[in-house]
Amino acid sequence: MLHFNNDYCRTGHPRVIEALASTQGEGHVGYGHDDLCAQARADVRRVTGAPDAAVHFAVGGTQANALVIGALLRGFEGVVAAADGHISTHETGAIERGGHKVIEVACPGALLRADDVRRLAEEFEASPIPEHVVEPKLAYVSVPTEWGAMPRLSQLEELSRTAHRHGWMLFVDGARLGYGLGAADCDVTLPDIARLADAFTIGGTKCGALFGEAVVFPDPQTAPRFRATMKQGGGLLAKGWLLGAQFHELLRDGLYFEATAQAVRQAQRVRCALERAGVPLRADSPTNQQFALMTQEQADFLGRRVVFDSFERHADGRLTVRLCTSWATTDAEVSQLEEVLAALPPTR
Amino acid sequence: MLHFNNDYCRTGHPRVIEALASTQGEGHVGYGHDDLCAQARADVRRVTGAPDAAVHFAVGGTQANALVIGALLRGFEGVVAAADGHISTHETGAIERGGHKVIEVACPGALLRADDVRRLAEEFEASPIPEHVVEPKLAYVSVPTEWGAMPRLSQLEELSRTAHRHGWMLFVDGARLGYGLGAADCDVTLPDIARLADAFTIGGTKCGALFGEAVVFPDPQTAPRFRATMKQGGGLLAKGWLLGAQFHELLRDGLYFEATAQAVRQAQRVRCALERAGVPLRADSPTNQQFALMTQEQADFLGRRVVFDSFERHADGRLTVRLCTSWATTDAEVSQLEEVLAALPPTR
Amino acid sequence: MLHFNNDYCRTGHPRVIEALASTQGEGHVGYGHDDLCAQARADVRRVTGAPDAAVHFAVGGTQANALVIGALLRGFEGVVAAADGHISTHETGAIERGGHKVIEVACPGALLRADDVRRLAEEFEASPIPEHVVEPKLAYVSVPTEWGAMPRLSQLEELSRTAHRHGWMLFVDGARLGYGLGAADCDVTLPDIARLADAFTIGGTKCGALFGEAVVFPDPQTAPRFRATMKQGGGLLAKGWLLGAQFHELLRDGLYFEATAQAVRQAQRVRCALERAGVPLRADSPTNQQFALMTQEQADFLGRRVVFDSFERHADGRLTVRLCTSWATTDAEVSQLEEVLAALPPTR
Amino acid sequence: MLHFNNDYCRTGHPRVIEALASTQGEGHVGYGHDDLCAQARADVRRVTGAPDAAVHFAVGGTQANALVIGALLRGFEGVVAAADGHISTHETGAIERGGHKVIEVACPGALLRADDVRRLAEEFEASPIPEHVVEPKLAYVSVPTEWGAMPRLSQLEELSRTAHRHGWMLFVDGARLGYGLGAADCDVTLPDIARLADAFTIGGTKCGALFGEAVVFPDPQTAPRFRATMKQGGGLLAKGWLLGAQFHELLRDGLYFEATAQAVRQAQRVRCALERAGVPLRADSPTNQQFALMTQEQADFLGRRVVFDSFERHADGRLTVRLCTSWATTDAEVSQLEEVLAALPPTR
Repeated sequence: MLHFNNDYCRTGHPRVIEALASTQGEGHVGYGHDDLCAQARADVRRVTGAPDAAVHFAVGGTQANALVIGALLRGFEGVVAAADGHISTHETGAIERGGHKVIEVACPGALLRADDVRRLAEEFEASPIPEHVVEPKLAYVSVPTEWGAMPRLSQLEELSRTAHRHGWMLFVDGARLGYGLGAADCDVTLPDIARLADAFTIGGTKCGALFGEAVVFPDPQTAPRFRATMKQGGGLLAKGWLLGAQFHELLRDGLYFEATAQAVRQAQRVRCALERAGVPLRADSPTNQQFALMTQEQADFLGRRVVFDSFERHADGRLTVRLCTSWATTDAEVSQLEEVLAALPPTR
Repeated sequence: MLHFNNDYCRTGHPRVIEALASTQGEGHVGYGHDDLCAQARADVRRVTGAPDAAVHFAVGGTQANALVIGALLRGFEGVVAAADGHISTHETGAIERGGHKVIEVACPGALLRADDVRRLAEEFEASPIPEHVVEPKLAYVSVPTEWGAMPRLSQLEELSRTAHRHGWMLFVDGARLGYGLGAADCDVTLPDIARLADAFTIGGTKCGALFGEAVVFPDPQTAPRFRATMKQGGGLLAKGWLLGAQFHELLRDGLYFEATAQAVRQAQRVRCALERAGVPLRADSPTNQQFALMTQEQADFLGRRVVFDSFERHADGRLTVRLCTSWATTDAEVSQLEEVLAALPPTR
Repeated sequence: MLHFNNDYCRTGHPRVIEALASTQGEGHVGYGHDDLCAQARADVRRVTGAPDAAVHFAVGGTQANALVIGALLRGFEGVVAAADGHISTHETGAIERGGHKVIEVACPGALLRADDVRRLAEEFEASPIPEHVVEPKLAYVSVPTEWGAMPRLSQLEELSRTAHRHGWMLFVDGARLGYGLGAADCDVTLPDIARLADAFTIGGTKCGALFGEAVVFPDPQTAPRFRATMKQGGGLLAKGWLLGAQFHELLRDGLYFEATAQAVRQAQRVRCALERAGVPLRADSPTNQQFALMTQEQADFLGRRVVFDSFERHADGRLTVRLCTSWATTDAEVSQLEEVLAALPPTR
Repeated sequence: MLHFNNDYCRTGHPRVIEALASTQGEGHVGYGHDDLCAQARADVRRVTGAPDAAVHFAVGGTQANALVIGALLRGFEGVVAAADGHISTHETGAIERGGHKVIEVACPGALLRADDVRRLAEEFEASPIPEHVVEPKLAYVSVPTEWGAMPRLSQLEELSRTAHRHGWMLFVDGARLGYGLGAADCDVTLPDIARLADAFTIGGTKCGALFGEAVVFPDPQTAPRFRATMKQGGGLLAKGWLLGAQFHELLRDGLYFEATAQAVRQAQRVRCALERAGVPLRADSPTNQQFALMTQEQADFLGRRVVFDSFERHADGRLTVRLCTSWATTDAEVSQLEEVLAALPPTR
């Protein structure tokens, strides 16, 4: 079977596994106070152009999101996200468990826009009894989004400017950040994100690591004593160097960016194959996830050779099929998928 | 000025104030273990036809909602409510503070329907990785709704049946319950609610009391040790008899029902006056709140004589104006309001 | 029966009930934005000598404690209290529900001392991995304490100085504050407390009101948007003027201080009667609660005429019996109690 | 330098690293639904003799403790632990963050006893107003304890029996379980623990794994939908097979037990060396941690050759020095440590 179901179905990039295994030997200091984490922090500061940034390493994405959002908000404040955003739909209420409402906004392509922020901020500011409503105070946006879209730099700039004008903060969930930065016409850089966001993550789990998300606060005063927040939230890994070793390997010479850019190129081959097969796309994605609208017959045909995710039964009976590449996807696998797609039953 | 802004702008029904004042004298046992609470509990069981019900008295509505919902749900479970529902919009995230997501559904008239429950339940049941999503487990509906609608008995029956069929519970927020039961063509009774809901409140604050909401669990096993939940949540009044005295006075001879039914009749006079004035209604409300769509000019004219609430600036510049009666609204006040409305600038 | 069981067994001071009843009439603005609350806030600022203080009115003590502590602490920070302190023992984990550890310290007389603060602060500061332990950041002290002790001004000054030197805050729980300020040799004033504490409450429930605790932040920047914290926590009373009316009546001409001082004098008569009867005191209390060590025989004898609280079965079989006066305790009641105590079986 | 500072300073047992690395290759299903987790679950059920047990794999110990305790308790219930217990002192309030009080009990050797449970249960059961106090409902005990003690089977049996008699549950934190089971005179087996506890963990992080704690509920009904609890708490690893692979390797042929038993033998050599050097022991530990009372001069001498943890400055100026072995400790390292200890300055 061909695995195009997700970007976290492989253990990790061989170089990362090697780096991890090579930490065997002398003893390490625990909880992230080790040299490998120090190196990885320096790497993150270098690639983000944020020399003073506070950098932490969490194990998983839901954990990182909950810890960051919990650290940035007071009790009665809420985070604004696309209704299709990861924290809205796929984290089992992890944010609410921390006491905060996720204020959901219907957003095309799951991309929260400056206009959404402006409207909600103005609504709150006009509220006659503001103590009765959750105060929106943090904009959450996945980059790229849950539908594979990569915002333009101008969009992120306006989002950041609008949020800050209203006294909000901006949090960029970068669980798939590499796949966004690797998009063909991407005009956003990591230093841009460090300049525009108050907090962001650089996802490792889906981008070559076995596990791990780097949490970055460009201004280290943003979340004082975040390590205590992490420990209290069960998110401080005892053997922290396991995270440091992975991020150092991914970032020291550009592996992170190469491996994800390669995956994006593979995904664009998939996209072309879908288009050639006449299959409509659910979303315009220049990144590593492709979302196709398929008939049940097509999905069944595909399923004989390919492992994929599907969801959203549409009114006309069609499904949304996700075909997802990763740093591990090979040319041969894509070629085989192309063949399968070329033979798909017609769309009608 | 005429006060039609809300139904909680007066201290309390004279008989209730009198009953409260008359508790002065000998010492009482604290925290609701007193005789007046015992009497009031018996009253609640009698009027709801639920002889075994567990009955508790909370001070306020947000408190009661948060305590009940917190007691009924496990951590990862959520409550489903209309997007205009009170817990969705007007409680500053009190439910999320308790760790639970409010799953919001767009509902005409803020009335959650059986179909909404069915769709969400089926979506969850079909979820390939159910541990990734909040499990909907409780349906919340305000009776009457935030837009003044009173559900039909058949609607509540279907809502209850559907919820239970999917293993959910049903919670009826009765902050304005009296005003709903007093609607002209209401076919719902308190025993119906006790039969259909797993938990419900009988609102006192807006219905004649100075403060207080009776919390009713028809089956006493529904929320074991709820008193501890109340205390931990800061919702157990030291001088509990103040609540008992009020509810006993309201319920012992039907004052609760008479006073609210009277308010509903006043509200229907207001409604007719709005219709005569050619002012469109935002919602079809047979209860004590009337929602009118007014031009700014009309609202300004009204504001010279009447205190009211307004919200929702519509695209055409009109506002939603709420005119609200209560047990305290007099014939004379409504007559004066009728005169004002008769002189409103035309709607155009 | 004579009621000496607690100081919250009577509805309220007649003048307070009268003030409450007299709010009937015209409509009031809700949620504490009314004129009576404004007057009561001015009263509080006047009697505390804190002209800029933020003043809020909560319904109950557990609620007030949980809201204040939640507003002052970040997630991973804890509050330090006597092991016998109210938040440690009698609030069903209300503080923990808000996510904060109550760091309990064994304290004679339940009086947290500067030395306790110093020791815990230095322990934390010396912690090799501070992210692994709860950071103590707030000192909680009941004034008077749970055992009736009234700290000396010098003690409070040193407590405040020590707390602030270590970057902590100080919260004074004044549920029985009037009874402490009314102690014969008390050298503490309300302006002292406002000068030394970052937050404190002035208890109404036990000191003449039907219910209500004034929450005072001498520096209004201490807890920004505390009204939202209150609403989210279910602690914002819809008819806020009910609280304003009571506190205004208690504070406008000194009723609060007179009524509680009178209760303290009654309690000291009880204390003398206990001493005359040869009953040892569990604690040296110059305030309205007296704690006597009685044999079971004595307690049984007492119980035939007097309602009281008892707890702590000691190793020798004796009980701690609490005899508590309030603003409502009459000379005649104390005289009758004196007679009963004079006839107690001997202590042996 | 010789590393005797802790048992988590090495990456992992070579066989475990190898097993982890060998998962590279074909795609895996995410979130623990994979075959390796299935195998590891079967291994756990086999070694614990609990064929129906629900088995989950968490990443870290604090996380596992918080998730389990949160799943077992209702809001107002608390967990009882030794004052020196891990959840009391070293988890930054993770349990309180979940809303639950840790009821701390002073216990010699940090071993919670049946008598402690009985006393607290009886106190609660005798409580006149039980809704005012946290209900103790779960006994937490680390096996071995934080001071290295290994309870006897009879002690665990009585603890379990007493807890269950009072309607509590028993949770065994097995972060170092292997080191306890490997103690020379240990009469406790894994099936004993599965028979006596309602929930327990088998620690991997300190016992040969890179990370990971197996969470076991012998009765699968104990914590329904625990996977949702894990996800909401940020504790469900995306690449769950990384945990499955490690536990399968540790358990499939007894590596877990051999590696930890070997560490215990090394620790007993250290203990003898301490005794020969005349250094008093702070605790009688038959497991892998030795706690020695050293003068500052001794500690300074030791520190020139050995990395160790120290804490507790005693009144006489001495320190508690922890010397800790692990599965990675070699004969040569212990021999070198023996030499250093033989040359220690005298104790005086």
